[in-house]
Amino acid sequence: MSVFSAFDYQMMSKAIALAKRGIYTTTPNPNVGCVLVKAGQIVGEGYHMQAGGPHAEVHALRQAGSQAQGATAYVTLEPCSHYGRTPPCAEGLIQAGVAKVICAMQDPNPQVAGRGIAMLQAAGIEVLTGLLEADAIALNPAFLKRMKTGMPWVQLKMAASLDGQTALANGVSQWITSPEARSDVQKYRARASAILSTSQTVIADDAALTVRRHALPEAVGLAYPLADIRQPVRVILDQHHRLHAGLKLYDTAGTVLTVGQEEADICVPADAMGRLELHTLLRQLAVDHQINHLWVEAGATLSQALLSQQLVDEIILYLAPKLMGSDGRGLFGQFGFESMQDVFQLDISEMVRVGPDIRMTVIPQYHSPN
Amino acid sequence: MSVFSAFDYQMMSKAIALAKRGIYTTTPNPNVGCVLVKAGQIVGEGYHMQAGGPHAEVHALRQAGSQAQGATAYVTLEPCSHYGRTPPCAEGLIQAGVAKVICAMQDPNPQVAGRGIAMLQAAGIEVLTGLLEADAIALNPAFLKRMKTGMPWVQLKMAASLDGQTALANGVSQWITSPEARSDVQKYRARASAILSTSQTVIADDAALTVRRHALPEAVGLAYPLADIRQPVRVILDQHHRLHAGLKLYDTAGTVLTVGQEEADICVPADAMGRLELHTLLRQLAVDHQINHLWVEAGATLSQALLSQQLVDEIILYLAPKLMGSDGRGLFGQFGFESMQDVFQLDISEMVRVGPDIRMTVIPQYHSPN
Repeated sequence: MSVFSAFDYQMMSKAIALAKRGIYTTTPNPNVGCVLVKAGQIVGEGYHMQAGGPHAEVHALRQAGSQAQGATAYVTLEPCSHYGRTPPCAEGLIQAGVAKVICAMQDPNPQVAGRGIAMLQAAGIEVLTGLLEADAIALNPAFLKRMKTGMPWVQLKMAASLDGQTALANGVSQWITSPEARSDVQKYRARASAILSTSQTVIADDAALTVRRHALPEAVGLAYPLADIRQPVRVILDQHHRLHAGLKLYDTAGTVLTVGQEEADICVPADAMGRLELHTLLRQLAVDHQINHLWVEAGATLSQALLSQQLVDEIILYLAPKLMGSDGRGLFGQFGFESMQDVFQLDISEMVRVGPDIRMTVIPQYHSPN
Repeated sequence: MSVFSAFDYQMMSKAIALAKRGIYTTTPNPNVGCVLVKAGQIVGEGYHMQAGGPHAEVHALRQAGSQAQGATAYVTLEPCSHYGRTPPCAEGLIQAGVAKVICAMQDPNPQVAGRGIAMLQAAGIEVLTGLLEADAIALNPAFLKRMKTGMPWVQLKMAASLDGQTALANGVSQWITSPEARSDVQKYRARASAILSTSQTVIADDAALTVRRHALPEAVGLAYPLADIRQPVRVILDQHHRLHAGLKLYDTAGTVLTVGQEEADICVPADAMGRLELHTLLRQLAVDHQINHLWVEAGATLSQALLSQQLVDEIILYLAPKLMGSDGRGLFGQFGFESMQDVFQLDISEMVRVGPDIRMTVIPQYHSPN
């Protein structure tokens, strides 16, 4: 029998719902929610909104005031134990006199990793973990991957007609997908820590690759928790120094990082074929720039390279109800497969309608471990 | 306010559910269901199972016996007024002393078209029409199209990887879709009046293009109303007389009709490019062979020709969660589109999972009337 009551599930669900309010803004920090309960009543609640700002527990403790004494805290992630930009939350919970802490999951951050729980227990607080753990994991796929592997979680955006074409033979591609789908893309951009593209794509479309509040789906725009939009870092592969100051890319708020072999913001070596080493780049983005969630909007070449190198965690594929014919440009270039055993296997984890289009969430099933 | 009561809706829903039991077997006749009600009790019910067999009303009247006197008949389609292989149902209802007839819709069959209703009314029976008409129309899209236009209703089967490929560069295509999807295809074949393919496809796959009971989805197989499977007529384009007796096509039950310019079961002229005139063929299939529902399983060339000539009513598209690369073979050949205004516009009316694959029901939105 579960050690948790129906009430416990209800409170942790609430904490998870609170945590979700931060999904556009907490990077590089995780999304965390907290609910403080005393005598069956909620006395405080909070979520983490922005790195550098108060953690979820701090908001909840402030709201509860003296009522935190003897309360139970429901937290979606193990309270932190280290001094970062804010003091450790475990300490705050101890000082407030909280009697019991229920965590959905341990923090895989090597700086925490059980130390928060140990700190609470050492102070005589009862600690339970594992309540709605799967939901808590789903809150932070990108943060958790970076903590565990030192690599960002990579989401690859693709869009095509129903017959897999991304442009007509003459290169025309505006617009295959609907305004609704393009607005939906803004939502993913807004969640990302960084956007990866290439100078070729940026120049061809004169793309700013920014998040625009008015272009966000209405529900997201209204609920967006910050006055100013947080702009993901734009990381642009520009091996041959084609980017120039006249581009919209540079005429918009937010950071741009160029990537090349030399004279670039991020320098990475090229492989034997002269192509920038993507694995090295991604590791640098995770380690040096704390990039959790990398959203890729690029052409067939970069998309294919990332997929072939097993660097893609999830494909967000928009399919428009159009047929364009095989004289157009395909989603990918040539793979050279000779047997059905060789083709990329996927799992379609979700499919929804976005205006007239379909959005599929697709998980690559790599032959060998990712 | 509706002239129909909640009870009326309930009875007509039942008649529609009964009608559906015949969807695999009634061609070239429509699916029809009938419920007879007396003093609030069902006294008879029936559906049409097979051309030449009793109509829905006859089954219901036989079951009701003397209780049909003064009863109300709920019928999904206007009772027939003409002597075909069976006597007119309108006459049967009159002779049984039915007091009231509620029809979901008029029969567009030029041999009926209101005459059934007029016959009933002339006998003093109260007749109401239009109850659940849209549902009744949805029962018989193919029969209704043939009655109204003299053309069959054409459903085009296609299958591809998620990036729109139907085969690898070397031609390997077995199997892109899952066993579940291939079983699902059997269900569509079983509903069709005829299957259209080409000698090229038949020879390449040594395809029998038959319905196999053990290959039907289990639920369909168990509910199939006949002891023997009704085999749709197989219509094979074979302009250059490539079909030969050694093929599985000829080693299976059911009719095969070859199509060519001459020395074929169905002779049609060729167009200026030397290709068989598809519009002419389809009209012949409807008029001479009473083909309501034509299910097309063919390669890119025939599929593209049918679509370009606006002859396709619905595409059943299976997408497998695989990526094959653009060196494979696309769903279609070249369309030569130069503007996004030119591409084929579609409407996705349904999408469902079939095993690991997706099945989409897609309606072409032709620029000019079909």
